[in-house]
Amino acid sequence: MDQYPSQLIENAVKEISRLPGIGKKSALRIVLHLLKKDSTLSKDLANSIVKMREETQYCEICGNISDQKTCQVCLSPRRDRSILCVVEDTRDVLAIENTGQYNGLYHVLGGLISPLDGMGPEELNIGKLQNRLKDNLEIKEILLALSPNMEGDTTAFYLSKKIASHGIKLSSIARGIPIGGELEYADEITLGRSIASRIQYNQENK
Amino acid sequence: MDQYPSQLIENAVKEISRLPGIGKKSALRIVLHLLKKDSTLSKDLANSIVKMREETQYCEICGNISDQKTCQVCLSPRRDRSILCVVEDTRDVLAIENTGQYNGLYHVLGGLISPLDGMGPEELNIGKLQNRLKDNLEIKEILLALSPNMEGDTTAFYLSKKIASHGIKLSSIARGIPIGGELEYADEITLGRSIASRIQYNQENK
Repeated sequence: MDQYPSQLIENAVKEISRLPGIGKKSALRIVLHLLKKDSTLSKDLANSIVKMREETQYCEICGNISDQKTCQVCLSPRRDRSILCVVEDTRDVLAIENTGQYNGLYHVLGGLISPLDGMGPEELNIGKLQNRLKDNLEIKEILLALSPNMEGDTTAFYLSKKIASHGIKLSSIARGIPIGGELEYADEITLGRSIASRIQYNQENK
Repeated sequence: MDQYPSQLIENAVKEISRLPGIGKKSALRIVLHLLKKDSTLSKDLANSIVKMREETQYCEICGNISDQKTCQVCLSPRRDRSILCVVEDTRDVLAIENTGQYNGLYHVLGGLISPLDGMGPEELNIGKLQNRLKDNLEIKEILLALSPNMEGDTTAFYLSKKIASHGIKLSSIARGIPIGGELEYADEITLGRSIASRIQYNQENK
């Protein structure tokens, strides 16, 4: 699809298809949708994007997106300040919050170490993490909740080296067969890991 | 996912997830992507959307999207003016142009008759189609290229009634098994229609 009927359409399709998960066909579908609907829809969309990009702040403590200088989680007196969950981005914080299983604090890295994409440790929010751990008496455990891929493993390895000197307990979320997942459809690596890190009944999980 | 870390994020997610084919999870992914990238990306995106919506014109003859008052196809002296292909929207024009198999003119309806969605014939670009056919000596055939669903069939039926009085040949694109499609995976209706409208070898297609 190279010949768009108008330069305006072509520009809009080009910009929209730069977004993750949107190809040229979806972008054209979006453009035609916007053309059919009232122009306020397009204006509201454009304004919300620009405003979001210009005005969004990051929590000065944990690096999560926030409306204020310090985010609600970091400010809350009800959170357990002895455990810090390290995640890649805000999406992970939302996902973990939705489980209702975690009541500690967070630290948002803003990415994972990925030499191929030019992402080194200095690009990530790791310096602030070390500052939080330095001279700290509250934090007893760091829980790594990173993606189970090469970037996640590299980042976890790097962090484990950096954190070792602070003498804080380091843990990772469990890898295994998803709840409701059929054993026969699980990939071999996940199944293998779930056997290696098996949990015994009548005993506390490690 | 109800608790977004910031009102700005929530607004942007809400606006973006109104677009067709984008849910709340994809919208959040897009928002986080825009936050990671330079702010010029967000500005360019927003500008291209507003500009597109405000300035896009429709060809006064065929109703297709156009940069000028009259579109390139309608203006072209190389197009066959004896045949008019009726389609739902601009996407269909692009798809047909990409085949390289059609050299006639178009008429873009801007939708299909769909009583459930409140789309009646008066909402569509049908009045202009009738004006094009009135007192016309060039157009010999109307080719309907509408979607093979209830809305498409209803619209085709309505148009066939309207066009009948003009004494112009009416045709439809062929329905059948897609090229490269496996017979066993075709649905019964398509397979049934492909048998009913079978074509004989050594004979011109109807």
